[in-house]
Amino acid sequence: MDETAVGMQRHLDNLTKPRGSLGRLEAYCVKLARIQGRVPPKVAGKGVYVFAGDHGVAAEGVSLYPQEVTRQMVLNILSGGAAINALAGGSGWDVHLVDAGCVGGSFPPDGELRPVCRFVRARMGEGSRNFLHGPAMTREEVGAALEAGRALAEDAGRRGYGLVAVGDLGIANTSAAAAMLVAAGFDAEEMVDRGTGIDAPMLEHKKDVVKVAVARRAPARTGEAILEQVGGFDLAMMAGFVLGLENRGIGCVLDGFPVTAAAYMAWMMNPAATGWLFAGHLSKVSGHRPVLEKMGLSPVVSLDMRLGEGTGAVIGGHVIELGVRAAGEMASFADAHVTDSGAREERF
Amino acid sequence: MDETAVGMQRHLDNLTKPRGSLGRLEAYCVKLARIQGRVPPKVAGKGVYVFAGDHGVAAEGVSLYPQEVTRQMVLNILSGGAAINALAGGSGWDVHLVDAGCVGGSFPPDGELRPVCRFVRARMGEGSRNFLHGPAMTREEVGAALEAGRALAEDAGRRGYGLVAVGDLGIANTSAAAAMLVAAGFDAEEMVDRGTGIDAPMLEHKKDVVKVAVARRAPARTGEAILEQVGGFDLAMMAGFVLGLENRGIGCVLDGFPVTAAAYMAWMMNPAATGWLFAGHLSKVSGHRPVLEKMGLSPVVSLDMRLGEGTGAVIGGHVIELGVRAAGEMASFADAHVTDSGAREERF
Repeated sequence: MDETAVGMQRHLDNLTKPRGSLGRLEAYCVKLARIQGRVPPKVAGKGVYVFAGDHGVAAEGVSLYPQEVTRQMVLNILSGGAAINALAGGSGWDVHLVDAGCVGGSFPPDGELRPVCRFVRARMGEGSRNFLHGPAMTREEVGAALEAGRALAEDAGRRGYGLVAVGDLGIANTSAAAAMLVAAGFDAEEMVDRGTGIDAPMLEHKKDVVKVAVARRAPARTGEAILEQVGGFDLAMMAGFVLGLENRGIGCVLDGFPVTAAAYMAWMMNPAATGWLFAGHLSKVSGHRPVLEKMGLSPVVSLDMRLGEGTGAVIGGHVIELGVRAAGEMASFADAHVTDSGAREERF
Repeated sequence: MDETAVGMQRHLDNLTKPRGSLGRLEAYCVKLARIQGRVPPKVAGKGVYVFAGDHGVAAEGVSLYPQEVTRQMVLNILSGGAAINALAGGSGWDVHLVDAGCVGGSFPPDGELRPVCRFVRARMGEGSRNFLHGPAMTREEVGAALEAGRALAEDAGRRGYGLVAVGDLGIANTSAAAAMLVAAGFDAEEMVDRGTGIDAPMLEHKKDVVKVAVARRAPARTGEAILEQVGGFDLAMMAGFVLGLENRGIGCVLDGFPVTAAAYMAWMMNPAATGWLFAGHLSKVSGHRPVLEKMGLSPVVSLDMRLGEGTGAVIGGHVIELGVRAAGEMASFADAHVTDSGAREERF
């Protein structure tokens, strides 16, 4: 353990509670202290960045929803009606909706929209291309998307956030996420999720699309190459966002499967990235668990959610924040005149 | 499912998210809707009731902490320095500290105390008696403690709470809780927890105390009889609190092992009680899981905590509240002009 981690654990051990009794909340506090280089850490401001993008592979019939739903849901978030608005509002997170490239053109400024969400115009076109028939993006697009993500990490730094959450929105983004992870060596049977809305034949079709798309290409060895082959504007931007958070003193809470797949690409590019990542939740998508395990991240909560938009990240992030608040506000044994047993763990 | 549950699920299914995608949060919303008889449910106000009491069995050397720590920690909560103050303050819960009977006399009004916590004077004496050598309480004391708990449930109703959390504080209360559950038929090896602060000989001693105390008595068939034999003022008051919440339209979130043991006694007295109970968290105490399972309750979060004071209850309760907020604030498919796939579950 480095000096900050040792100092943070010592701080926790002096607080008026049996040692170790805050369980995994203590580990989150130690990790955030290391990220921020500060004992105890703070979460003054926090923001969730929801990356919306369309995926050409939707044309292969891998989702029950029509592609126009991506755009409809962006408008829903902008007007405050989506799940992420309620969950973020209920726990003090700013919402940033990033249009990485949704079908249907740019979103016009609209006086009717309620000021519940910041809109970030970062669109790279009418969705990424259908990766069954060619690369999802050009190499230049991958670079531009990574750069746009890095710029948003800088934005988070300027806003003084202590924690950020990453969310996803886009029809067929689980197909792209699964294809990226299969290209990275994970098992297609596990990565392509059943989901009770897809019947067995449609699931087999979705698996075929992913398997064929990956098999058609030369093996990709880097995160950039995988993003180019089977990724998407939104997924590449998320990866850039994760990479851009290095040395900014900001903890980053991941949402479910697509966000974790993007973070996995970032991790391939920079293995230090898990040092500032938290797994906000374990989703119900079958491929989520093995990918988190490979990255050595254990989820804060596990609620069988599969909604996306950053909803699981914000819930997990709020639990982390409660731990940080306890570490920052509790009295020490000495200050509160409470007798210390000196034991490593006991219960009052 | 009753009419309210059907109505609540229909409400959830019309919101702009894939059906079922809020996972267990949807089940919590349905349960709270049934408790409140209202679609969607609301959590306008909420309070955590921390029941503090001393236990005569502490004289047997079953804890590493001296008994005076109970009183010190009550004062710490009253002045806002404990974990529950930070966690409750961070998520909008009122804190009520109930003195059910701590050693050292009553707590004088103290102008120095910060107004962070309401103090409830309900003390029934200098702790319950050492149950190794006789009953922990008289039958009359059990009745009075249950009544005091019921009065606090009425208090919660007057305050208009939608959710309450129950917390515990008291040296040796895990020994009393374990003895109650062993008397109720659970295995002593599982109920008496190791805890890394207690070495192996001390753990064996704690087990012996619990086993001998239970074996010395005629088998108890009711919650009241068990409370009389091996319970405590605080535990009986918690049981009364749980019972008193019937038909008040308030969901009740349990904390860890001692609180769950008290709720188990309430459940023995009224099997309908699980209808308004939520398991806030799964603690690290070994006996917690089998007792929750027996009651058919699954924990909201599982963070390896073992702190008490209602800390796990408040974290779990806050997660439930975020779900309720989503159910109450989200737009419907029709209102937001989002295309509905009609499928039971899918991902945007």
